[in-house]
Amino acid sequence: MDPDDSLLKFEIPEIIYGINSLSQIGHCAKRLGGERVLLVSDPGVIEAGWVDAAITFLDKENLKSIVYDNVVTNPRSFQVELGAQLYNAEKCDVIIALGGGSPMDTAKGIAILVTNHGRIQDYVGCNLISQPIPPLICVPTTAGTGSDVSQFAIIADPQDKIKMTILSRAIMADVSLIDPVLLQTKEPELIAATGMDALTHAIEAFVSSLSWPMTNPHAIHAIELVFKHLVDAAKTKDIKALEGMAIASLEAGIAFSNAILGAVHALAHPLGGLYDLHHGLANSLLLPVVVRRNLEHVPAKFAKIANAMGIETRRVPIERAAIEVPVKIEALISDLGLPTRLSQVGVRAADIPILAKQAQEDLCMLTNPHCYAVEAIEEMYREAF
Amino acid sequence: MDPDDSLLKFEIPEIIYGINSLSQIGHCAKRLGGERVLLVSDPGVIEAGWVDAAITFLDKENLKSIVYDNVVTNPRSFQVELGAQLYNAEKCDVIIALGGGSPMDTAKGIAILVTNHGRIQDYVGCNLISQPIPPLICVPTTAGTGSDVSQFAIIADPQDKIKMTILSRAIMADVSLIDPVLLQTKEPELIAATGMDALTHAIEAFVSSLSWPMTNPHAIHAIELVFKHLVDAAKTKDIKALEGMAIASLEAGIAFSNAILGAVHALAHPLGGLYDLHHGLANSLLLPVVVRRNLEHVPAKFAKIANAMGIETRRVPIERAAIEVPVKIEALISDLGLPTRLSQVGVRAADIPILAKQAQEDLCMLTNPHCYAVEAIEEMYREAF
Repeated sequence: MDPDDSLLKFEIPEIIYGINSLSQIGHCAKRLGGERVLLVSDPGVIEAGWVDAAITFLDKENLKSIVYDNVVTNPRSFQVELGAQLYNAEKCDVIIALGGGSPMDTAKGIAILVTNHGRIQDYVGCNLISQPIPPLICVPTTAGTGSDVSQFAIIADPQDKIKMTILSRAIMADVSLIDPVLLQTKEPELIAATGMDALTHAIEAFVSSLSWPMTNPHAIHAIELVFKHLVDAAKTKDIKALEGMAIASLEAGIAFSNAILGAVHALAHPLGGLYDLHHGLANSLLLPVVVRRNLEHVPAKFAKIANAMGIETRRVPIERAAIEVPVKIEALISDLGLPTRLSQVGVRAADIPILAKQAQEDLCMLTNPHCYAVEAIEEMYREAF
Repeated sequence: MDPDDSLLKFEIPEIIYGINSLSQIGHCAKRLGGERVLLVSDPGVIEAGWVDAAITFLDKENLKSIVYDNVVTNPRSFQVELGAQLYNAEKCDVIIALGGGSPMDTAKGIAILVTNHGRIQDYVGCNLISQPIPPLICVPTTAGTGSDVSQFAIIADPQDKIKMTILSRAIMADVSLIDPVLLQTKEPELIAATGMDALTHAIEAFVSSLSWPMTNPHAIHAIELVFKHLVDAAKTKDIKALEGMAIASLEAGIAFSNAILGAVHALAHPLGGLYDLHHGLANSLLLPVVVRRNLEHVPAKFAKIANAMGIETRRVPIERAAIEVPVKIEALISDLGLPTRLSQVGVRAADIPILAKQAQEDLCMLTNPHCYAVEAIEEMYREAF
């Protein structure tokens, strides 16, 4: 056995959190040595006014902003390449991602290419990035992705219609700047779907084979926060509920970046690649089905998750408590008004064998508490269909 | 109000944890760009064989080791200066601290001087360090100090017989490498005293005015672990118990580095300066007394601490649960066989006014849940006398 196998690691960016903390963005960029900022965002975030607000704060510190907004849900490899060309042409020296998971993952992809060169496909897999990236600040405008604190970037290959997973400590941001006020301009459906993404991160990290005492308290606290705040956050946009979800996303992100993920993500990634399905929604559709399978293998862990969800677990046998977890998740999805079947969102039954094959090969499957045969994965897709 | 006042921050080093992880020390130093290592330790750690073991691992990566072991409990400012001279004379490029709080704080002091110059006294206070320090790796051989993950260094001024607090993000280590095997060579009394230091960190961080959702889960989990493992760790040196204490120290360190501390530390520091008292022991002697005062101001927080200690808190009024906390701490101190009165360890009643004045001015007092007049501080010393 490699001596490294017994090592547990934990690494996160510097975190700055607070109402109106967006105002710190110029200060952050400056102290990382930045003078010319590539500001990676998307048209929705621009329309909400946050890019203009950020530029004002950057101007105050005499920083030049170059905006790159050629970003879509499930960002494409060619968008990363164009962004890297812009960074080089404009002689930028710092990257700020302002947006949800798509701008943040695009920014990470750009950061890889400007110092490591080649194509983004060259870096798909684990720890294949050799050169340090430029200074990177992530400012999330959704609560769920966790990309601001994670070692992951997921980029779609439009030719092959697959999502490519890049996992490397080299692509962790220097600073995650979290301002819950930015969440107020998102539509309720997006708050709901990204919140389900955070819940999936927390559950998968907690049951992962790489979970440990540094990741577990964050995973459990994130689950508590999602069940306390997500419905209110989506329905009322109450700032206290949004703050709760901002912290839930942060803690779930910290947990999964260090404990990695599991079968829900492995099954969700192919849905993003093939149908361009929103990642949070894909996770939400698959979560109850995968949890029902996984809980047979680690019932004690799911009993602890049940407790965090507010299910009475004292004097209840572990298996009985665990079995309540998917029921509670389904009730939450129903309260949020999200779709519950893959067939409702354009998935075709005929594609299931292809999806299952891709899911089985996904990096995230390696840390799932049980290793499933491709037939079992097909069954899970059918159960969620 | 300064806009920064509403910001919450969280920053920790990269953490590597595992049985026999000391073997990674050369790899860590090398990837930080090191070729010539200043290895800061102390005679006890050398005698236990850990310095030789570390040098063997550094040799394997072709790194040159220069050992500096002129370090005592409550390390002195002149020892820091001599260490910095050695670093410069030997043209070192990375610092590794291998030991308890004293070698780690000495290493931080050396790191400050080699890039910032001047005297260590110039940097006493908050955020006064302008130049980045050299790469720094901390490898703790005790479970309690938390210096390996903290933004603090405490150096004694032997002339004025005071302990000086340096607080700056600039002195955070790059890597905290935690190998619980290293704890096995410590005497039971030291395991007990340093474990009480960890408990004090966790309690003070949890009730601090700067505590927040990123620090609280770590503080609570550390308290749980101390009550589960400390007595076994000290009495049997069982590796599972030592692992529990290694994690407790880590999580308590993370919590206090980001939420800061309180009155126990403010009262303990002058005891270290004037009597050279072991820091963990000083905290242990003061903790019950300070907690009895503090719990009147934040009873709900202490009820949560009670719960983490294993006290039944359901259907118990908050104040009743909180009041059990100091009782439980006293029982733990008694189980550990540590002294319980300041008069047992050489403190003189006549010094109390001087001690109280220094305590009131200590940085750690700023985040205590209540601000005490100097008379109240004198009373606390007398109650612990």
